[in-house]
Amino acid sequence: MADPQAVRTDARRHHDPEVSGFASDNYAGAHPEILAALALANGGHQVSYGEDDYTAHLQFVMRSHFGPHAQAFPVFNGTGANVVALQALTDRWGAVICAETAHINVDECGAPERVGGLKLLTVPTEDGKLTPELIDRQAWGWEDEHRAMPQVVSIAQNTELGTVYTVDEIRAICDHAHERGMKVHLDGARIANAAASLDVPMRSFTNAAGVDILSFGGTKNGMLFGEAVVVLDPDAAGAMKHLRKLSMQLASKMRFISVQLEALLARDLWLRNARHANTMAQRLADGVRSVDGVTILHPVQANAVFARLPHEVSERLQKRYRFYFWDEAAGDVRWMCSFDTTEEDVDGFITAVKEEMGR
Amino acid sequence: MADPQAVRTDARRHHDPEVSGFASDNYAGAHPEILAALALANGGHQVSYGEDDYTAHLQFVMRSHFGPHAQAFPVFNGTGANVVALQALTDRWGAVICAETAHINVDECGAPERVGGLKLLTVPTEDGKLTPELIDRQAWGWEDEHRAMPQVVSIAQNTELGTVYTVDEIRAICDHAHERGMKVHLDGARIANAAASLDVPMRSFTNAAGVDILSFGGTKNGMLFGEAVVVLDPDAAGAMKHLRKLSMQLASKMRFISVQLEALLARDLWLRNARHANTMAQRLADGVRSVDGVTILHPVQANAVFARLPHEVSERLQKRYRFYFWDEAAGDVRWMCSFDTTEEDVDGFITAVKEEMGR
Amino acid sequence: MADPQAVRTDARRHHDPEVSGFASDNYAGAHPEILAALALANGGHQVSYGEDDYTAHLQFVMRSHFGPHAQAFPVFNGTGANVVALQALTDRWGAVICAETAHINVDECGAPERVGGLKLLTVPTEDGKLTPELIDRQAWGWEDEHRAMPQVVSIAQNTELGTVYTVDEIRAICDHAHERGMKVHLDGARIANAAASLDVPMRSFTNAAGVDILSFGGTKNGMLFGEAVVVLDPDAAGAMKHLRKLSMQLASKMRFISVQLEALLARDLWLRNARHANTMAQRLADGVRSVDGVTILHPVQANAVFARLPHEVSERLQKRYRFYFWDEAAGDVRWMCSFDTTEEDVDGFITAVKEEMGR
Amino acid sequence: MADPQAVRTDARRHHDPEVSGFASDNYAGAHPEILAALALANGGHQVSYGEDDYTAHLQFVMRSHFGPHAQAFPVFNGTGANVVALQALTDRWGAVICAETAHINVDECGAPERVGGLKLLTVPTEDGKLTPELIDRQAWGWEDEHRAMPQVVSIAQNTELGTVYTVDEIRAICDHAHERGMKVHLDGARIANAAASLDVPMRSFTNAAGVDILSFGGTKNGMLFGEAVVVLDPDAAGAMKHLRKLSMQLASKMRFISVQLEALLARDLWLRNARHANTMAQRLADGVRSVDGVTILHPVQANAVFARLPHEVSERLQKRYRFYFWDEAAGDVRWMCSFDTTEEDVDGFITAVKEEMGR
Repeated sequence: MADPQAVRTDARRHHDPEVSGFASDNYAGAHPEILAALALANGGHQVSYGEDDYTAHLQFVMRSHFGPHAQAFPVFNGTGANVVALQALTDRWGAVICAETAHINVDECGAPERVGGLKLLTVPTEDGKLTPELIDRQAWGWEDEHRAMPQVVSIAQNTELGTVYTVDEIRAICDHAHERGMKVHLDGARIANAAASLDVPMRSFTNAAGVDILSFGGTKNGMLFGEAVVVLDPDAAGAMKHLRKLSMQLASKMRFISVQLEALLARDLWLRNARHANTMAQRLADGVRSVDGVTILHPVQANAVFARLPHEVSERLQKRYRFYFWDEAAGDVRWMCSFDTTEEDVDGFITAVKEEMGR
Repeated sequence: MADPQAVRTDARRHHDPEVSGFASDNYAGAHPEILAALALANGGHQVSYGEDDYTAHLQFVMRSHFGPHAQAFPVFNGTGANVVALQALTDRWGAVICAETAHINVDECGAPERVGGLKLLTVPTEDGKLTPELIDRQAWGWEDEHRAMPQVVSIAQNTELGTVYTVDEIRAICDHAHERGMKVHLDGARIANAAASLDVPMRSFTNAAGVDILSFGGTKNGMLFGEAVVVLDPDAAGAMKHLRKLSMQLASKMRFISVQLEALLARDLWLRNARHANTMAQRLADGVRSVDGVTILHPVQANAVFARLPHEVSERLQKRYRFYFWDEAAGDVRWMCSFDTTEEDVDGFITAVKEEMGR
Repeated sequence: MADPQAVRTDARRHHDPEVSGFASDNYAGAHPEILAALALANGGHQVSYGEDDYTAHLQFVMRSHFGPHAQAFPVFNGTGANVVALQALTDRWGAVICAETAHINVDECGAPERVGGLKLLTVPTEDGKLTPELIDRQAWGWEDEHRAMPQVVSIAQNTELGTVYTVDEIRAICDHAHERGMKVHLDGARIANAAASLDVPMRSFTNAAGVDILSFGGTKNGMLFGEAVVVLDPDAAGAMKHLRKLSMQLASKMRFISVQLEALLARDLWLRNARHANTMAQRLADGVRSVDGVTILHPVQANAVFARLPHEVSERLQKRYRFYFWDEAAGDVRWMCSFDTTEEDVDGFITAVKEEMGR
Repeated sequence: MADPQAVRTDARRHHDPEVSGFASDNYAGAHPEILAALALANGGHQVSYGEDDYTAHLQFVMRSHFGPHAQAFPVFNGTGANVVALQALTDRWGAVICAETAHINVDECGAPERVGGLKLLTVPTEDGKLTPELIDRQAWGWEDEHRAMPQVVSIAQNTELGTVYTVDEIRAICDHAHERGMKVHLDGARIANAAASLDVPMRSFTNAAGVDILSFGGTKNGMLFGEAVVVLDPDAAGAMKHLRKLSMQLASKMRFISVQLEALLARDLWLRNARHANTMAQRLADGVRSVDGVTILHPVQANAVFARLPHEVSERLQKRYRFYFWDEAAGDVRWMCSFDTTEEDVDGFITAVKEEMGR
């Protein structure tokens, strides 16, 4: 196969690859090792729609992380992973208990409801994390046909608020859910950051803790695109290929998702990327924590820093670095670090915060 | 940014890039110029979810092909493109008139119905092509609430049977549909092959012929993944970003779809790839047409060859080259050529057909 | 309780109860015995949503007709019965094989697709009746995720074309479907007319023939409103109460549906009404069969007469009697008889046909 | 037509019409004037599916209550009315702002989500009532495709908690919603009780206050079954007949819903029934308010009394009178009065409360 670097392309570069910011880990591009993997998988013919050799091999890789019963179903994006996974665990009348702040509730334009026909039963939380007690506010009424039936508890590791469940917390949730006949879904859009934060293997808070199905996130950790539903509960596996197809998440040239996941997971790229992003977030938090007028809002346990500072300061900062308000009325902002955030980026940003706070 | 060819990856090559076949154009990988474009767009931060510079630039590229009102909305795959596009043209009670053999009817696991809530009103056809007369078999009952309301005619260019509409045929369909208050969707999963076959610009049978919205296909013509809904009817554009998101077709790192589309469309890669595939199909058809016992079933107008030959011969051939039965009972098979099919591939296959027919 | 006939009502009579026609059996009102049953069930408090004594008793009545495993779930209308029943037999990726002319395909505004998320796999038929051979045109591809999975065969007894399956025909369909792992749904909107036509108990072509679930029709046979899903396959029963509720078919004052069904089924009102309607249709067919220029189109096996006659004659007739064109282009009309059609109605209509044909 | 009281029916009486309770207003049967109206509308043929004379006349009746632009679309039940009405005001990506306690959120098994594809954006409230301030917690993000778009505010009059909005409160909500480009839906399952409570015409808090569409409730106020969507915003009317059909809420013999609504609304039955139920609730509240250990929880503004008393007392009471726990953990119960609750029923119940509290 031709070397892609050696061939011309009719596309042109339209952006400045030196510019980065703190808006989101999906503002970053792809890790070079991921791009190299794409080239490796290219050339020749491979059976489409997941019958290729890369997707086959991915099963071994996934099992090394998530145990011998894990089955991986690559999909396009996180919304797709979540909605396919949740359908696999629910009847048509099922409901999903989740935090009010959960991505599936606030950031997917109602895709769980509209595509999956799912009802979400939400619970307000302090820090984005469910507990058995919080779950019980919605875990009732299984016999009552007037109520959407709670069949799944969905947690995110880490949460939308950048907090990370401990292994014991997840085990307690799984035990609690299972006792009540419910399954547990873990939205792992940033699962690698959580594992890096806890310094444990991913299995310790997934299959080993009782999680039944998870959305494994690749895009936010250095892939171009692509996630996988990892089925840990063998009963749910049979439905998956049909649900993935009807949910429009079946890639024809699946080898190009699978090889990215392999590049991430075969050795330690997933962990290197995640650790780096987390470290950068700590560096950022440490650098601004002492600045008068800046408050760090949640424990910085992964790659997100939530902070409160004067609104006009944030607006001036946004002219220098891209990031989002989280709660504009309260003046809360979110600063995300990613695999490609550099120490220079962080230090420059800390300096900018100090400068703008001092004006 | 690091040269992806120069960096290691933890992924390994699992396939033989020398092996190819005639099963499908999505068995092929990506064109090297496409891979090169990915590297170009990598590095630095770009706004996610379509606010990036590549998606912005793509609008210019698309307009050069589809006219000044065209708006392109990149999506992940063809099913997604079709279902998003059709929703943009229908009310909740709408129906779509299409050929019984249409991909949206037979090959998407009911995604139009399940995700889009669409009713398909199908018509049997001779060769996969609708006509005004065939459309009229289903184009009635707009006032009748008992009937799903025909609001869109969906045609595929080229069709599932490898046939290609002429410009006049599409214009007649669009005029006919518009007179009855319906819109026209064109499923262009292989639109480039059709343009190459007709030797006309794509605009001549899309916006210039009256098509209101189209699914532009990239994956089957050398991209890794990615298609685009191209909206030609400005009234439909406002709905698109919401429909794409709720249909789970919104890519976070959209630059990586857009730059592939740019690489394909900025100059002539789309046409080179398509012409080559079509030429290979002609070569294949020409080579087997004279073989006793082999019948070519439809006009070979693009990159597909449909043939009938003895079932046991096909089975022996399948041990040497991968391809699919189209109608197993009838002994019909489909042989697809793609951008990377070589003359040697074709000639080897013709020889194999002759050998197996002769045994 | 007060006698409803003795109390005033603020409603006024707006129609002439002497006028009837041949448009549809749902143009008729309610049988007096049905109205009387409503009064009987009125007064006092009864648990809502189906926990009332009438719905409980209905189970015994239904079992006397459909065997000891039958469970009846009253619903509002036929569309509701069909869509709830079909959901009970399908996974989210399921498909339903039915005749192209089936009510669920042509007359429910896409409710099966939109509410149930069902894909219909249709087959053209001669006379509205499926056969094992016709079923096999769509009964394939269970392993193929690209295809909506055929999980149910849905037949109507009698069919939209007024034809009636024999007991053996239904048994053959059920055996065939079950061998292929599919279930059988029977749309019994006019099940009583079929039983009267065949002169057999309803059980002989439902549970005894292998049918798994049926929509039992009451409205067209003399009820004000109300149908029931009768579940014969015990595996499907658990889903029913949830599906009925989420499909918006759960009546709060269910006693008023159940008591109507009891009035119809406790002894022989269902059969009296159906026999009468069938007899009237025979009388009508016999009366016009010999008229020059009138062709009876299908075997008249229940309460519908399909005929072809000159379009302008039909139009003149429609000024005297209400009925519908079935296929306006072909000049086909449908004449329906109902429980309240009188011999005088029929004879008057026959005379009118002769008069208008003779002009 | 035969007098239904004079004819036999094969149905038998299975319940004791002397027994009533305080469980729900849908435990009651039908008002005798309603039954009498059914008999009036019976006999002869009437066009089905809403083209009958009763449904035509109903338009005049509804306009006398809801103004000259009101259009009434009879449906089967309250869930159906709500889901059809909400679809008429939303795009496929729309969301509905409602109280967390709203019936559409907690008591319809997810039908709004599953049938209507609607996302509900809920707000906790003190007493079941929204305010402009509460609405604003969810009324934002119209440009953001990641968020389901708030397009409707849905309020219930009276609320699930038995509280009643003042005219000014509803006007303020409508003005607020309209300023933000949203429409207002009023769930009027108990609209008559609210009008009786406020002692104003229904129009004063619907069309005159700015409400765009409402679900008019008949079943809980003395009908056998049947509600109506009343469209006040002419822009929403065109969609209604299609949405009603595809949502499986189109009655074939619609005259039997329409004539009930006429009987209720032509003069004052709706108000007599509602006033009586409200008066009984006041009598009940007054009678128990002074009992030591019983606390009335919300203002008793309509026909519901919410009370807190010792759990074991409620359990003993439930053996004598049927009613429901509202919040079992807290010991909260709901006592509903209906059109047929008598003073003797109430006084007997008060005595029972005192007896059981005193044991």
